[in-house]
Amino acid sequence: MNAIHIGVLGFGTVGAGTIKVLWNRKEDIERELNMAINVTRVVDADWERERPLALPPEVKGSNPESIIEDPSIQIMVEAIGGVDPAFEIVKRALRAGKTVVTPNKELVAKRGRELLSIAAENGSELFFEGAVGGGIPVIQVLKGQMSGDDICEVAGIVNGTTNFILSEMSQRGSTYESALREAQRRGYAEPTPTNDVEGYDATYKLAILASLCFHSRVDVEKIYREGITGILPEDIEYARELGYILKLLAIARKEGEELELRVHPVFVSTDHPLAGVSGVENAIFIRSTARSITLRGPGAGGEATGAAMVGDIIEAILNMKYNCRGRADCACQGELTIRPMEHLTTQYCVRTHALDCPGVLARVAAEFGKEGVSLSAVKQPVSTPGEPTNIYFLTHEVEEARLQRSLGHIRALDVVRDVFTIRVG
Amino acid sequence: MNAIHIGVLGFGTVGAGTIKVLWNRKEDIERELNMAINVTRVVDADWERERPLALPPEVKGSNPESIIEDPSIQIMVEAIGGVDPAFEIVKRALRAGKTVVTPNKELVAKRGRELLSIAAENGSELFFEGAVGGGIPVIQVLKGQMSGDDICEVAGIVNGTTNFILSEMSQRGSTYESALREAQRRGYAEPTPTNDVEGYDATYKLAILASLCFHSRVDVEKIYREGITGILPEDIEYARELGYILKLLAIARKEGEELELRVHPVFVSTDHPLAGVSGVENAIFIRSTARSITLRGPGAGGEATGAAMVGDIIEAILNMKYNCRGRADCACQGELTIRPMEHLTTQYCVRTHALDCPGVLARVAAEFGKEGVSLSAVKQPVSTPGEPTNIYFLTHEVEEARLQRSLGHIRALDVVRDVFTIRVG
Repeated sequence: MNAIHIGVLGFGTVGAGTIKVLWNRKEDIERELNMAINVTRVVDADWERERPLALPPEVKGSNPESIIEDPSIQIMVEAIGGVDPAFEIVKRALRAGKTVVTPNKELVAKRGRELLSIAAENGSELFFEGAVGGGIPVIQVLKGQMSGDDICEVAGIVNGTTNFILSEMSQRGSTYESALREAQRRGYAEPTPTNDVEGYDATYKLAILASLCFHSRVDVEKIYREGITGILPEDIEYARELGYILKLLAIARKEGEELELRVHPVFVSTDHPLAGVSGVENAIFIRSTARSITLRGPGAGGEATGAAMVGDIIEAILNMKYNCRGRADCACQGELTIRPMEHLTTQYCVRTHALDCPGVLARVAAEFGKEGVSLSAVKQPVSTPGEPTNIYFLTHEVEEARLQRSLGHIRALDVVRDVFTIRVG
Repeated sequence: MNAIHIGVLGFGTVGAGTIKVLWNRKEDIERELNMAINVTRVVDADWERERPLALPPEVKGSNPESIIEDPSIQIMVEAIGGVDPAFEIVKRALRAGKTVVTPNKELVAKRGRELLSIAAENGSELFFEGAVGGGIPVIQVLKGQMSGDDICEVAGIVNGTTNFILSEMSQRGSTYESALREAQRRGYAEPTPTNDVEGYDATYKLAILASLCFHSRVDVEKIYREGITGILPEDIEYARELGYILKLLAIARKEGEELELRVHPVFVSTDHPLAGVSGVENAIFIRSTARSITLRGPGAGGEATGAAMVGDIIEAILNMKYNCRGRADCACQGELTIRPMEHLTTQYCVRTHALDCPGVLARVAAEFGKEGVSLSAVKQPVSTPGEPTNIYFLTHEVEEARLQRSLGHIRALDVVRDVFTIRVG
């Protein structure tokens, strides 16, 4: 029986989860692959912290060089996150012919193309199933089974933190602030939650998904992005009245030779496969000309993401064993044009915060009318005369540019304090 | 550019769907694989029938030998269905070194192990993504990403016909008979619907799923099976009252070194990922020690299943190109013991059809009590004195053997006309 040696860089949640899942069925996996699998080096900066898993002392190290420079290590698990110094380390490992398995979405989204081409040049491989949707096997499906599909759309709940917050707001009527505190209390949100709540994390995942779906390079910076910090419980309530549920979605759609790329809150119809996905769960909906598929599962967690990493490790070992590295190379070399957001056509829910005085509704509605934005539904709740109140307008389908022009006029009205927009569908 | 030659056996829904999906992105797929893909022979018994796709006359044939005996054909698509003569034809094609791609669940469930070993001996391969869940990429996920997972359970809505009928009954209050007629009218059910409505089709798919999940041989004949022909609209209504939805599920669970294997109607909790899957859609829920994943999509249809076939064809071509056939061989060589149904422990909904006369409820309840079956809920609807009526009993968790003993006593009561059982969970 031949042996595979694995080095793990970063012994946090995912690093430890990967080793735990691997050890759980180690004998079975070894028998199925006819290959011994040894974790020979685990590198971490701080060995004082309490860990859920005990390691033999001889594998512990603190210098990434002890993995990169060790020619006996064929697979490196990168689980330190972020672009710096991960990019340099991964680059060197790939150049040294090692296969790298990583859940690092930021790294893959921003530097994946470069790393994949370094891998191809050096006969090594880069796997990143854990980078999108945690334990959901979406990367393999897109690179494999659906690689022949003519994909029109991918839409995902790809951030568990924001989905938890929105679910809390929906189920308990909590404010954003109190739902965020609950998420932080449970360890679902960071003390500084910007990366999640402002949608940055979702843009990384969307860049990866879209590049696989549409066989095209996708620049993270070109993804339109809105977070969930401005969402009110009333928005969710109004969504419910109309038969929708509010979700933060990452959406990529191919329209002709253009690509729509956007992360923002969406009113999702309750019969859409993504509507029932609540809490920290993630789900990804993929529509091609031949089939619509939804993959749902845990978006994070050491063992769930660890299982995705182990799936990648097994793929990597099979490719070594059968001498077919590079077999499922990413075909993301196209260059689709990114469609400007102004060209998006959809329905919109517009919430205006305006003084409750005579003629307000008519004045706002008139501004929509002037720009040819027609209304599908309006809701003005019972309010206190003279106090500001939220009035909701649901438009018919309209081009974003036209809607934004009308919103510009509405914002300029003296009775209007604020205007907030949520897209539908 | 090298060329791949494909022969298609059977030009029905799936055969034509496969060719259509393949042609749809042919140039792109060829460029990505750097390989020309030619459908050089399509064999069908009857070329008079109207088809959704026109073929050049030179590829049309009527003799399977023209595929099996043609050494230039490397991949055979088998789309004729059934075991006989498909088994012999596939066997000969595999022996001739051809890779076979098939959506034939009965063939794979009953003879898959034998065919896989013939493939392994002859350096050929057998792919069968389309055999379970139509366009849902569950086979690749189980053979690939989740092959390292310690899977505890797989549960699926794997038959679109029965899911459509149950959805019709649930959404419209239809009887089984009228929902079946509607399914037949839409082409979702065969004129003789036994294979679907009695659960045979689901057992084939469960055998395939379970063998992949649990790395074990699974004998179709050992799967416990009940269909949906005895379901009443009132059963679905009672499920709804209790917070459940009624589904025909195919379930395999590992309990220690034993395997539960069963296909029957189930009261599914409305917050289960399978609960929201209605109509002809299919979905498969897979739970491992590390993650719970749900894959949802079209369970049938020419293009959906055709897309799964094309996914397999691309895998097959990659394995030829990289000279790594056999790379993802099925590891289904274990032999788990099938747990007898009497050992199942779950909750049960028992519907008794009994005369509405004094003391009936007490007499039935007493029989449960004598066997130690405790009740969680009871419902006796308003009825006409002296007429038979349906009384529902929901038990707490109890072993099947004990429940069946109590049902034996209940059936023997002079006031009881019929007893029907639906499992919960």
